[in-house]
Amino acid sequence: MTTVTSSEFDRAIALGPDGPDAPGRYTGELGAGWQIGGGINGGLLLAVAANALRQELPGHPDPVSISGYYLSTSRPGPLTVQTEVIRRGRGLSNATASLGQLDEDGRPVERLRVVAGYTDLAALDGEVRTSAVPPQLPPPEQCVGREHMPMPITPDLALLERFELRLDPATVGWAVGQPSMNGRLQGWFRLADGREPDPLSLLLVADALPPVTYDLGFPGWAPTVELTVHLRAVPAKGWLRVSHGTRNLAGGYFEEDCEIWDDAGRLVAQSRQLARVPRQA
Amino acid sequence: MTTVTSSEFDRAIALGPDGPDAPGRYTGELGAGWQIGGGINGGLLLAVAANALRQELPGHPDPVSISGYYLSTSRPGPLTVQTEVIRRGRGLSNATASLGQLDEDGRPVERLRVVAGYTDLAALDGEVRTSAVPPQLPPPEQCVGREHMPMPITPDLALLERFELRLDPATVGWAVGQPSMNGRLQGWFRLADGREPDPLSLLLVADALPPVTYDLGFPGWAPTVELTVHLRAVPAKGWLRVSHGTRNLAGGYFEEDCEIWDDAGRLVAQSRQLARVPRQA
Repeated sequence: MTTVTSSEFDRAIALGPDGPDAPGRYTGELGAGWQIGGGINGGLLLAVAANALRQELPGHPDPVSISGYYLSTSRPGPLTVQTEVIRRGRGLSNATASLGQLDEDGRPVERLRVVAGYTDLAALDGEVRTSAVPPQLPPPEQCVGREHMPMPITPDLALLERFELRLDPATVGWAVGQPSMNGRLQGWFRLADGREPDPLSLLLVADALPPVTYDLGFPGWAPTVELTVHLRAVPAKGWLRVSHGTRNLAGGYFEEDCEIWDDAGRLVAQSRQLARVPRQA
Repeated sequence: MTTVTSSEFDRAIALGPDGPDAPGRYTGELGAGWQIGGGINGGLLLAVAANALRQELPGHPDPVSISGYYLSTSRPGPLTVQTEVIRRGRGLSNATASLGQLDEDGRPVERLRVVAGYTDLAALDGEVRTSAVPPQLPPPEQCVGREHMPMPITPDLALLERFELRLDPATVGWAVGQPSMNGRLQGWFRLADGREPDPLSLLLVADALPPVTYDLGFPGWAPTVELTVHLRAVPAKGWLRVSHGTRNLAGGYFEEDCEIWDDAGRLVAQSRQLARVPRQA
């Protein structure tokens, strides 16, 4: 489960068994470098839980569908993941996971509950008849990266240093007080340390862009209630194109639909999250 | 939990407690009238589980987000739902449910595992800034209903008699061997016995249309792997407009995105399911 690597992401999702008396239970650590907006990034948490489930499902290493319900804000520090295999199938298996920490009083508190269907993405066959088209983006060097950010990276923005994210200039007006009001952000993504994408890192990427609400004139953090990711293929090496948007901000909630395209032009992941509209100051 | 009503849907989701020694556990019955394509309709199953969770979460009667993972095909006959409350919050609570039956050998088998976030949809405030637009449909009387179907309703199509579904003529070419190849179906929906829509019936409606794969030239049933529904408002009385489509049929799976609009023009529900492409004969 631990790998000999200097990859930040692999260190972040690394798990150890919680002892012989706790089958299906794993321990790990959430690093301060994965904080954003007051908590640990939701996609990273989902990837940690997914890594635990992968250990329990040999032959089916990859989620084809994984749903996470976020219950309380995660903090830097130790974590546990308790897994339960629900069903082992021929082409698909199902399992659930509960990621928890200890709160400030040392009491166990659940952070994330996950249910998933796992398969071997590399073994999927069947024709590819994708009718969706990738987002049209200027080349990465013409997109907006961290070097253009006017403010320093403070600890509550530490997540941004894990990414090489280059946003389409047409979708960063919000950063200078001019949101486009389309509710869409898109750009190029790769991990800052050069680690190539794989199924588990796609779960992180599905929650890596700034919230779509920035582009609707709502600054502030938008807590995730639920996130479901469909992984549809093993991604090729190289840049990912990521685009997300919302069409139904209402009643204090909004949905955020994300698509991730790999360097070979495959739509490798689709996700939707439900999040709370940021509180107005 | 049982209501004095002749509504087919309310009878279908009705539950009783499984005795004082089984807290959080309910019993019900899946009727043969809800069969389609060899099993019980997935939306109906989700609504049964959702009804159980509603009993456990007073003050938060409605799912704002609910995810179901389908594990084995459900059959007419008795069912149980075991619930677990994960967290009771002020505006949002979370719970999980496991719907099961006994197989032909009398052994318990799980049919559906559900995780959800519940709230009081009628109490949601916050502006409505929906940018999505409802599907343009001909009036119901100009759409295609059951009276136009060339074949009789056999037991494996019994579900169709529960619905008054009137499909946009532009999206029924598949019924005469001419799928449009857009991968989209849409139309008007109400329950055949006139019961008005409410949050739980929207879960049924999210899985009520024929599979989008019919419109891509794939006849045959498309089993649901996972279905997540976001309920965003209490629906107004009257007709619902339902539209669903796919953009990523690949590797033996496809996603099916559904939107449900009420008679007041609100986008009351959005859902996405992952399903298996029908096996080619």
